[in-house]
Amino acid sequence: MNYDQIFQSAQDAFLHFKNVSGKDKGKFLRRIAEGIEAEKATLIPIAAGESNLPEGRISGELGRTVGQIRLFANLVEEGSWVEAVIDHANPDRAPAPKPDLRRYLTPLGPIVVFGASNFPLAFSTAGGDTISALAAGCPVIYKGHPAHPDTSKLVGQIIQKAAIDSGLPVGLFTHVEGGIAEGQALVKHPLAKAVAFTGSFTGGKALFDLAHQREEPIPVFAEMGSVNPIITFKKKLANNLEVLAKQFVGSLTLGAGQFCTNPGLIMVPSAHAEDFAEAVKKELEEIAAAPMLHEGIAEAYYKSLESMKERKELHWVQVAEAKDLIKAYPALAKIKATDWLEDDHFQQEVFGSFALMVVYENFNELFAIAQRLHGQLTITLWGEEEELANKADLINQLEEKCGRLLFKGVPTGVEVSHAMQHGGPYPSTSDSRFTSVGSYAIKRFARPIAFQDMPHELLPDALRADNPLGIWRMVDGEFKK
Amino acid sequence: MNYDQIFQSAQDAFLHFKNVSGKDKGKFLRRIAEGIEAEKATLIPIAAGESNLPEGRISGELGRTVGQIRLFANLVEEGSWVEAVIDHANPDRAPAPKPDLRRYLTPLGPIVVFGASNFPLAFSTAGGDTISALAAGCPVIYKGHPAHPDTSKLVGQIIQKAAIDSGLPVGLFTHVEGGIAEGQALVKHPLAKAVAFTGSFTGGKALFDLAHQREEPIPVFAEMGSVNPIITFKKKLANNLEVLAKQFVGSLTLGAGQFCTNPGLIMVPSAHAEDFAEAVKKELEEIAAAPMLHEGIAEAYYKSLESMKERKELHWVQVAEAKDLIKAYPALAKIKATDWLEDDHFQQEVFGSFALMVVYENFNELFAIAQRLHGQLTITLWGEEEELANKADLINQLEEKCGRLLFKGVPTGVEVSHAMQHGGPYPSTSDSRFTSVGSYAIKRFARPIAFQDMPHELLPDALRADNPLGIWRMVDGEFKK
Repeated sequence: MNYDQIFQSAQDAFLHFKNVSGKDKGKFLRRIAEGIEAEKATLIPIAAGESNLPEGRISGELGRTVGQIRLFANLVEEGSWVEAVIDHANPDRAPAPKPDLRRYLTPLGPIVVFGASNFPLAFSTAGGDTISALAAGCPVIYKGHPAHPDTSKLVGQIIQKAAIDSGLPVGLFTHVEGGIAEGQALVKHPLAKAVAFTGSFTGGKALFDLAHQREEPIPVFAEMGSVNPIITFKKKLANNLEVLAKQFVGSLTLGAGQFCTNPGLIMVPSAHAEDFAEAVKKELEEIAAAPMLHEGIAEAYYKSLESMKERKELHWVQVAEAKDLIKAYPALAKIKATDWLEDDHFQQEVFGSFALMVVYENFNELFAIAQRLHGQLTITLWGEEEELANKADLINQLEEKCGRLLFKGVPTGVEVSHAMQHGGPYPSTSDSRFTSVGSYAIKRFARPIAFQDMPHELLPDALRADNPLGIWRMVDGEFKK
Repeated sequence: MNYDQIFQSAQDAFLHFKNVSGKDKGKFLRRIAEGIEAEKATLIPIAAGESNLPEGRISGELGRTVGQIRLFANLVEEGSWVEAVIDHANPDRAPAPKPDLRRYLTPLGPIVVFGASNFPLAFSTAGGDTISALAAGCPVIYKGHPAHPDTSKLVGQIIQKAAIDSGLPVGLFTHVEGGIAEGQALVKHPLAKAVAFTGSFTGGKALFDLAHQREEPIPVFAEMGSVNPIITFKKKLANNLEVLAKQFVGSLTLGAGQFCTNPGLIMVPSAHAEDFAEAVKKELEEIAAAPMLHEGIAEAYYKSLESMKERKELHWVQVAEAKDLIKAYPALAKIKATDWLEDDHFQQEVFGSFALMVVYENFNELFAIAQRLHGQLTITLWGEEEELANKADLINQLEEKCGRLLFKGVPTGVEVSHAMQHGGPYPSTSDSRFTSVGSYAIKRFARPIAFQDMPHELLPDALRADNPLGIWRMVDGEFKK
């Protein structure tokens, strides 16, 4: 099939699928989850082999993937996500009668989804982007990631089989293979209505620009990663030096440092910088180097480190030599806050297990860093409650720089839930108003439509007088069921 | 003040204003409404004089403007608009403990708002864009429309006085005068976080492109108008010929045809096309030509008509000669559906009281038109219930082409309410996922932020355990107060 046929088939499927009930969409999604579980024994070794990730990790990711699918199934079966609003007519209102007006969310149309290399299941073929688009009622044209072609094809077949078993048109989901040129052609197709992407800034920004240069510009939800700063405070650090060093190194080296929420920047008060660096070094030495997703990523990691080594402002705590063409040896360098503040280059993400430790002398330096920070997916504060109590201004400033602010634990490990926000100010994502993880991810793929004085028999169930779906709605300004 | 100073002052005001309570924001907004009402006697003649609109219309618009301000005051005083979501921790969950995660909407930052010429009050200085941005907690840098400079300055002073009287920083609202270059400089300023605009496609698209070419791209909410098709069906038309002709002409010529929801396209079945055209012509002849907003707009109207006259596919029912440099004489031309389908140029908006009547022979032609239509703010269906009963496919298709679908009345007269959707697929607006009229307009200026394991004393009121604001929240998946 050429792309025109793929998109026409998706568009035809869309005009049917958008009116499929939440209950039936839920069944379809559950079939995908069941299909993945049924193929577990085949899928896990294939995905592990293609990604260099251990089978245990892939098995956990599979659990997360099906859990995520069922979260969206629950969401659409329950149905309130459509934000139904009803304002009743008032024919007696002066000077003009008030019409009957009803509004809800309707799906956008065919969505182009790009798979991510670092999560061959959870952010790929049946990952959060595909599933939230399908849940919203949108067909998906999925561009598989070349780093895990067989995993991708197998999951694609599971989705297609689920569509057929559910009596839904196969045009709902198409799996496309290819590289950059193919991806660009998909984004440029006139029938595409939005794009979802997880990956590098360069890749995401290129798609963003392309989508906005179309005759009809379309939204791009690009999650482009960030350095996820951790800010540490004196007392907390002094009281928990070893524990925090261990937590930090665990998060930094998880999955060979290939998480979008990997902490690549840590701010440390000068009084404890040396001790903390020592403790971190000790932990790092105990971590076995892990293979990265593919050789290209490992090569890029070591190349970035080489360029970092040319900067005389950096003092290396742990050096990673390119001892291996595929494994990532973690690395850590220290820099003074005053030096860090001089050059935005120090904010660039090094994809992999490298972190920059910024040593600050006082609160003013820390506040200057907070003001200077680029947009981040997450920022983490490690402070005792009494240290944070008078930091309202700093916290207020940091809120402007991230989508999720943590006060405990580490940024890796993104909870899939209602309250999750995985999307921060630019350049961490292309649109901070939306999330790519958690149930609100569905909102990316819908838009409101209002019906004025629509005959009752024509109204969708979500907007009928008797509320047959039993969903939460705003009726004449009051939330009710 | 130069633009750097203006934006820095707005940014400083923002870091304070974003944390002001809904109750206090409501008071501030009510002060603006009261200020406008107090200056009514001065404002109305100035606005009427600058816009060529009758004082009665301006007086009505003033009522709409203060009503709109109070709607947003109610919204932020009530407070549930922030979409608070709480997922409680579960330290016992396996394999990993579940963190406490809380999410709500936080304002974006300084917003650049462009005033519209066609509504000197309701879509201008204290119009829906400014007020919904302020309600969200965002400062506004307002570029006054040069067509009504004195109205704009006076309303700007009212807003500034309301800020001072409310003990809020004056940087919350700045009134800027100027033309295209000044507007572009505002959109390009690094501290600007979003843009709202109501006006022409050319103007809106230029700002959209500029905002997306910035180092940090920012969202642009441009409402760029449309031709708001009315689709008529045989029986309805035959049964109500005169009434519908009168309704159509009333809507077409309202405000000299200068509404964004002006019906510039009407589809008529061939069986009744001549009769309906006659009835419309009779009505049009009784309408006195009304002055347009300024000479430039009148000139553009007549120029567009001249270029339309060169198209041999058009048959003129009512010709408007440029008899006047300022007044708009309404005009109407007929075209066969088959001709209309040949050239997208026939979809272009002529700003003013001109409409194209598309004569269709059968349902297939009508369906082809529905598929071909560009994105619209509104589409109106005039059919008897039995004529619409079997038109599910057509209605389904039309939903893809508009933000509001009407089954009675006319598209002009946009209700300011919760259920309103004033924003349709491109090119009617730059982002169909949002509305510029009604309470949901506030959502344009906010983004979600999540707090993970935040100490309770630091939580904003909207997310505290005891729900001190008494707002609707989703707690562990359940909506509750």
